[in-house]
Amino acid sequence: MKMVKIPSAKRITGPLRHFLHHARRPPAGSAPGVITVDESSPSPSLSVVRYCADSHQSWSNVSVDQLADLLQGEGNLWVNVNGLGDAEVIKSIGALFALHPLVIADIVHLGQRAKVEPYDDYLFLVLRMLGAEESISHEQVSMVVGKRFVLTFQERDGDCFGMVRERLERGNGRIRSLGTDYLMYALVDAIVDGYFPPLEAIGSRLDELESDLLDKPMSPILKRLHVLKRELLVMRRAVWPLREMVNQCLRLEHEGLLGSHVRIYLRDCYDHTIQIMEMIETFRELASSQMELYVSTVGQRTNEIVKVLTMFASIFIPLTFIVGIYGMNFDPEGSPWNMPELGWYWGYPAVMGFMLAVTLVIVCYFWRKGWFHGN
Amino acid sequence: MKMVKIPSAKRITGPLRHFLHHARRPPAGSAPGVITVDESSPSPSLSVVRYCADSHQSWSNVSVDQLADLLQGEGNLWVNVNGLGDAEVIKSIGALFALHPLVIADIVHLGQRAKVEPYDDYLFLVLRMLGAEESISHEQVSMVVGKRFVLTFQERDGDCFGMVRERLERGNGRIRSLGTDYLMYALVDAIVDGYFPPLEAIGSRLDELESDLLDKPMSPILKRLHVLKRELLVMRRAVWPLREMVNQCLRLEHEGLLGSHVRIYLRDCYDHTIQIMEMIETFRELASSQMELYVSTVGQRTNEIVKVLTMFASIFIPLTFIVGIYGMNFDPEGSPWNMPELGWYWGYPAVMGFMLAVTLVIVCYFWRKGWFHGN
Amino acid sequence: MKMVKIPSAKRITGPLRHFLHHARRPPAGSAPGVITVDESSPSPSLSVVRYCADSHQSWSNVSVDQLADLLQGEGNLWVNVNGLGDAEVIKSIGALFALHPLVIADIVHLGQRAKVEPYDDYLFLVLRMLGAEESISHEQVSMVVGKRFVLTFQERDGDCFGMVRERLERGNGRIRSLGTDYLMYALVDAIVDGYFPPLEAIGSRLDELESDLLDKPMSPILKRLHVLKRELLVMRRAVWPLREMVNQCLRLEHEGLLGSHVRIYLRDCYDHTIQIMEMIETFRELASSQMELYVSTVGQRTNEIVKVLTMFASIFIPLTFIVGIYGMNFDPEGSPWNMPELGWYWGYPAVMGFMLAVTLVIVCYFWRKGWFHGN
Amino acid sequence: MKMVKIPSAKRITGPLRHFLHHARRPPAGSAPGVITVDESSPSPSLSVVRYCADSHQSWSNVSVDQLADLLQGEGNLWVNVNGLGDAEVIKSIGALFALHPLVIADIVHLGQRAKVEPYDDYLFLVLRMLGAEESISHEQVSMVVGKRFVLTFQERDGDCFGMVRERLERGNGRIRSLGTDYLMYALVDAIVDGYFPPLEAIGSRLDELESDLLDKPMSPILKRLHVLKRELLVMRRAVWPLREMVNQCLRLEHEGLLGSHVRIYLRDCYDHTIQIMEMIETFRELASSQMELYVSTVGQRTNEIVKVLTMFASIFIPLTFIVGIYGMNFDPEGSPWNMPELGWYWGYPAVMGFMLAVTLVIVCYFWRKGWFHGN
Amino acid sequence: MKMVKIPSAKRITGPLRHFLHHARRPPAGSAPGVITVDESSPSPSLSVVRYCADSHQSWSNVSVDQLADLLQGEGNLWVNVNGLGDAEVIKSIGALFALHPLVIADIVHLGQRAKVEPYDDYLFLVLRMLGAEESISHEQVSMVVGKRFVLTFQERDGDCFGMVRERLERGNGRIRSLGTDYLMYALVDAIVDGYFPPLEAIGSRLDELESDLLDKPMSPILKRLHVLKRELLVMRRAVWPLREMVNQCLRLEHEGLLGSHVRIYLRDCYDHTIQIMEMIETFRELASSQMELYVSTVGQRTNEIVKVLTMFASIFIPLTFIVGIYGMNFDPEGSPWNMPELGWYWGYPAVMGFMLAVTLVIVCYFWRKGWFHGN
Repeated sequence: MKMVKIPSAKRITGPLRHFLHHARRPPAGSAPGVITVDESSPSPSLSVVRYCADSHQSWSNVSVDQLADLLQGEGNLWVNVNGLGDAEVIKSIGALFALHPLVIADIVHLGQRAKVEPYDDYLFLVLRMLGAEESISHEQVSMVVGKRFVLTFQERDGDCFGMVRERLERGNGRIRSLGTDYLMYALVDAIVDGYFPPLEAIGSRLDELESDLLDKPMSPILKRLHVLKRELLVMRRAVWPLREMVNQCLRLEHEGLLGSHVRIYLRDCYDHTIQIMEMIETFRELASSQMELYVSTVGQRTNEIVKVLTMFASIFIPLTFIVGIYGMNFDPEGSPWNMPELGWYWGYPAVMGFMLAVTLVIVCYFWRKGWFHGN
Repeated sequence: MKMVKIPSAKRITGPLRHFLHHARRPPAGSAPGVITVDESSPSPSLSVVRYCADSHQSWSNVSVDQLADLLQGEGNLWVNVNGLGDAEVIKSIGALFALHPLVIADIVHLGQRAKVEPYDDYLFLVLRMLGAEESISHEQVSMVVGKRFVLTFQERDGDCFGMVRERLERGNGRIRSLGTDYLMYALVDAIVDGYFPPLEAIGSRLDELESDLLDKPMSPILKRLHVLKRELLVMRRAVWPLREMVNQCLRLEHEGLLGSHVRIYLRDCYDHTIQIMEMIETFRELASSQMELYVSTVGQRTNEIVKVLTMFASIFIPLTFIVGIYGMNFDPEGSPWNMPELGWYWGYPAVMGFMLAVTLVIVCYFWRKGWFHGN
Repeated sequence: MKMVKIPSAKRITGPLRHFLHHARRPPAGSAPGVITVDESSPSPSLSVVRYCADSHQSWSNVSVDQLADLLQGEGNLWVNVNGLGDAEVIKSIGALFALHPLVIADIVHLGQRAKVEPYDDYLFLVLRMLGAEESISHEQVSMVVGKRFVLTFQERDGDCFGMVRERLERGNGRIRSLGTDYLMYALVDAIVDGYFPPLEAIGSRLDELESDLLDKPMSPILKRLHVLKRELLVMRRAVWPLREMVNQCLRLEHEGLLGSHVRIYLRDCYDHTIQIMEMIETFRELASSQMELYVSTVGQRTNEIVKVLTMFASIFIPLTFIVGIYGMNFDPEGSPWNMPELGWYWGYPAVMGFMLAVTLVIVCYFWRKGWFHGN
Repeated sequence: MKMVKIPSAKRITGPLRHFLHHARRPPAGSAPGVITVDESSPSPSLSVVRYCADSHQSWSNVSVDQLADLLQGEGNLWVNVNGLGDAEVIKSIGALFALHPLVIADIVHLGQRAKVEPYDDYLFLVLRMLGAEESISHEQVSMVVGKRFVLTFQERDGDCFGMVRERLERGNGRIRSLGTDYLMYALVDAIVDGYFPPLEAIGSRLDELESDLLDKPMSPILKRLHVLKRELLVMRRAVWPLREMVNQCLRLEHEGLLGSHVRIYLRDCYDHTIQIMEMIETFRELASSQMELYVSTVGQRTNEIVKVLTMFASIFIPLTFIVGIYGMNFDPEGSPWNMPELGWYWGYPAVMGFMLAVTLVIVCYFWRKGWFHGN
Repeated sequence: MKMVKIPSAKRITGPLRHFLHHARRPPAGSAPGVITVDESSPSPSLSVVRYCADSHQSWSNVSVDQLADLLQGEGNLWVNVNGLGDAEVIKSIGALFALHPLVIADIVHLGQRAKVEPYDDYLFLVLRMLGAEESISHEQVSMVVGKRFVLTFQERDGDCFGMVRERLERGNGRIRSLGTDYLMYALVDAIVDGYFPPLEAIGSRLDELESDLLDKPMSPILKRLHVLKRELLVMRRAVWPLREMVNQCLRLEHEGLLGSHVRIYLRDCYDHTIQIMEMIETFRELASSQMELYVSTVGQRTNEIVKVLTMFASIFIPLTFIVGIYGMNFDPEGSPWNMPELGWYWGYPAVMGFMLAVTLVIVCYFWRKGWFHGN
């Protein structure tokens, strides 16, 4: 297994940064086990929890050698690795648990789709975990579930496993007495349920947009809608394979590793992924409908504005022409044909009356066209 | 089973309020049986009906202890619970009927999709019931169907089970003589048929919109259309899983609980869900087509308005320029070149004639372009 | 089986009248066999044909009692019922042929989807028949096919079974010698083939629209296109389940009722439903494409009109300003700076020349922008 | 089998003429074997080829009686019929080969979808053949493949079987030595490959449109794009069932008629139909994308034009107003308030300077709005 | 097998050049084995690698005769052919390895879809290889995998097999010790991974477009977006069948040729094709969303511009009319009705005040309409 470190070259830094999480990967044609590490990611830090029905111990900042010692003990182990910046460490962990080279490669090469792959002695799961609620960031979580251990790999610190750790510590629930498959379910469930808060935040933003649209139809919502749609796209891309993965877990036949009692809980988890999918699809349709409403409103407003312009212009431009005529300086003395009206007794009132008549005709024309009653 | 009460925090209050019925749910990573109750919902009130082929009794405002007594008697029981605001009560009901913790969680955590889950001793159904005809509101109805009892849980008072209660009371139909599976069918059927009135109300509104569009093509229908489309989205989201659920019921193999004679009735019910789906899809297409017609009409009207403006402006602006020329104050005495026309004998008539000619040329130009015959 | 007559309340009367054929149905929660009759529909009128290979008799305006007598005779019976306005009559016919209550309910409650349901002694079919060619109206046709009888129920007089009646009367074809299943095929085939004429009428209208669009690109086609699309939607909604139904008939295993020789003919009928589906889909795409062409054309025309306006305005507005300057009444005697040009010898020609230059500059600007050669 | 001749009534003659090839068909409800002939189509002309591995004979303008004689001979027969205008001839050919009445009806009633139907003694195929490359015309080709004969029926003269006839004549290939199933493959393959040239012609036209769009963004491409899309629709409608048909042939179990060695060749043919489908779909997407680009470009150009208009108008209209003020004829002698500026020493330059300032302010305003640098 | 050389006629030279890679193919109706060579493509140049676990030899510019000699030796052979311009050479290679005529035809006739076809002694694969990163060019790669040899055919020099050649030469990996199936996997994997760099380049361009759109909403992105969408269309068209092909390989039952240990690696390769598909689909959706944002922005900007125009025009055109009135030259001495205002003491200030009032009224009107606060 050769290791290649390629420099953290031309990364995307614009608005799609969080979106286009491209995988670091070795050049095309490399042997399948070659690992490429993203140098900018933090170096691995290990924490271990050993638990059985009536005991619970935890260590943090464990070295790989210490981990090898801990493996000898009794009880189930949960080894969590934060940071994937050092290929040597990952490789030695992989060696300790006898992982297939392709598994190690998938752990290190970020940007994988969620999937579950059964191997002889362990299950390998990849998931995508949503993080902060502000802007949708996400990281890849890889999980290796053996008979007596669960290995989790995260891109960086910070996760949504806090409650699971607490339940392990408290130890009065099912989680301590049941096997590693239940811990796996608990972790997957925590990741899945972690999709709801950002999704509900998006729902609130949609709600605000809807209010704005209905009350102030021309408010500048375009960019907000576009960003929202992009985030929904990110989430959708993460959830589709997640749903598929949970479904595969449900139907997986792997004697010894996945107990039937866990399946009931996984079914519940699967329901949640479907709920998430439906919320996303509904939000997408709502966002599309709002976009459509906005565009139609803009078109209608332009129509109204042009109508105002046309009415003003159509009434006053002819009038201006008429008064312009009588502003001409033809010499009334040079010829009796040169604007004799200017000297008439009723000349000025006649012109004013004529202009009034012209105005009425034009207004009537627009009235009959229905422009005054919004038609 | 731990219980957590989280405050009824940031709820959506805008136009999507009825739409984004987000589930109250415990924080991500909690144990699967933890229940979170929405404090603002009413506390449970139980009513019980005990019936067999030749007797019928009903109690309202039953306490859980009284319910335990009633369970001892003969005949089939229908226990209806309105309001889910008190987790203790729900839990003790669950204990009375030996329900799985996940079932209790699904009952309390609103916003579930319609589904049916077979357990050993009972079926668990979740449905969505449409309420008032005005604005589409809906609530979650959970149903547990045992050999000798039917449990229904509703979010609040008010349902569409009135006719079913009446039939139970009258007791001259199939409903008293057949088992709890037929009661389940009757309740599901009542919920499904409850979709038709609001759907037909939407149909009437679509019809009015269509009339408005065809008669007064520029009437302000945008918001109405948008709201209508949103309501269709709500209904569709509720009906899709409902259809699936009824279909699953049809194919369910659960000896003892679901008799084959009920399947014929369920098939009828399934037909209704398909009819509802088709009506919704058709309404959606109609609404889209109306939106398209509206947008096209606006574009065409803008075109016509701009045409009027252009013709007025193109005719009178050059004329105004011409009369402006002869309004200049060049001193005819300063030079023979300074506007000698002003002193000519035929000056004024010549200018008027020239302007007439210009007008004719421009009008001709537009005529040839076909702007007068709407082209 | 209770009967409820609800008044023919708020019916849709606008343009979607023919479209939203909502079913009369009893209130939600009613027992499944309750029948609700639309009072405005005509009362049933029965006509009976009795035929076998070498004889043919027909009666019209038969009463239910007479029908009971006719049932005793030899040969196959075709009983046709026009009008569903009297529930008692329908119920007694149902009793005569021992029909399931749900079948009777489906016959009376209009707005059903096309479907086929096998019962022990008969097949129950629902179809949708297209009527006049002018505006697409349609009615529900229910069919009960027994071993020795065919029952058909129509909403009102007028159908497309004329040729079938004639063939029965002439009696030199297969229709007299083969069983009721062949008669069923003949009737279904007549209904299916009845879709072609209105479809071809729509095709002709599309053709006219296309001609108009290509020759006179701004002709007012919006409403016509919209109405056409709506009619296609109606037909599509009717044909989809029809196709499904014929396909189900093809695969139906019902010993005794459906002979294998009829299947070859049903396959031909199935081909026709697919052809109809394809025509509808193609027409829909054509209509969409025409709508798109129209909208694009309007946008392009608006562009051209605005271009004309802009060129007129941009050339003459500056010129009008210039002549306006020399229309100002500054007193040349009050100051040597007050418009001395007015008194210059070449003043007037110089201004005219300047204005010509300005015009040329502006025209050049537009020329270089390519506005003159349609770019 | 009755024959009805209905007059070649209201045919579509507009731009959709080639598109809406409606089938001549008997009135709804006719017996399934009734044939309706399109009187305007040419009367049948038969040509026959008899071949075996080492001989080849061909006749043209064969009568049905001669055909009956030729049937007696050795070797395989290929009978080609051009023109379907005489029902008697078609019927007697059908009788000669013992064809099912529905087969004869499908041969005569044009506008069928491509399909393959296995009968006991023969296969019946319907295909759609594309003709000239200019405007996409097509005709229906029906094929009956028996153990020792291949019958082909075409609407009119002119086909793409030239190369097949040549190969039969040359006789050094597989086509002479293998059976009628290989001849069937050869003919189907010729028809399928005949789709490529018109498709490539469409590709070239798309290419030209693309060039025009990118170089001269406002060129009048709407109609050309629309016609192109319509032709793609025609082809797609023809190819979808063709692909299905070839696939069905591949999986057909018909002992004796379809040898396994022909299947390898049919697989190649199937690949071609998929390639055609993909080209069509890709072209459709390209055309849509071009349409979208065009519409967006028009919108953007309108925006730019309106911007020019607005800038000209917004600068010169206020200036014209200002010079208009000083063109008023208030009598300075009537009052000291009557436009004393007109008599000031610096009056004229001050007004000119004021106007310059106004112009600068307005230009600045537009500059800050970014209208000058295309924003 | 006859060979026909048709001249490299009317090729597409416009912007779709790389896109519409139409296959050279013989005229419709030709015998299936006839080969048509594109004369403009380079003539074949062969290079051979012979390897086993402990040895490695390579030759370049091998003639077909030399190849026949090399075939006699021990070890696995990889024969690579660059350029397909000489049908004789391809035919003799085909004869050497006993390839089916249809395989040779598929190798030579470019524009095939990716596919895998199992033959008795070898697998035949067709793939599409992406080349340079600048503009998406691609070429067809055909692969024949036998028990002891791998044949690859490329359209021209330049490929992404460099790393594979290196790994073969270094020889310390699996590639030397495992069979030809692993070499096949390595080559397919190299081609698949070669899709990532151009895809990521497209991602970067999308990112730039997004930045431009959000910062400078009117920047000219239309053409860039259109070109990008077209390239995505090209890639999608290439990847869909590729994914299918790898999936088929995974499920292929071909004893002796495809070892089960290779399947695990192929599964990894399949994951990559799915990742590529998802990236392409996501990019397409992003591009559509950007297009929509752009079009909406243009509409909104036009609205704003028209609003500015309307406000300027509506305020100043009436004012210009008013000052025009008092510019008329009616003779105040001819009649007391002839504009006596001109001689009034407060005439001029009164007119100025009146105009101010008119302005205020109009501004108020627009204010109340909300035009000033962007509504």
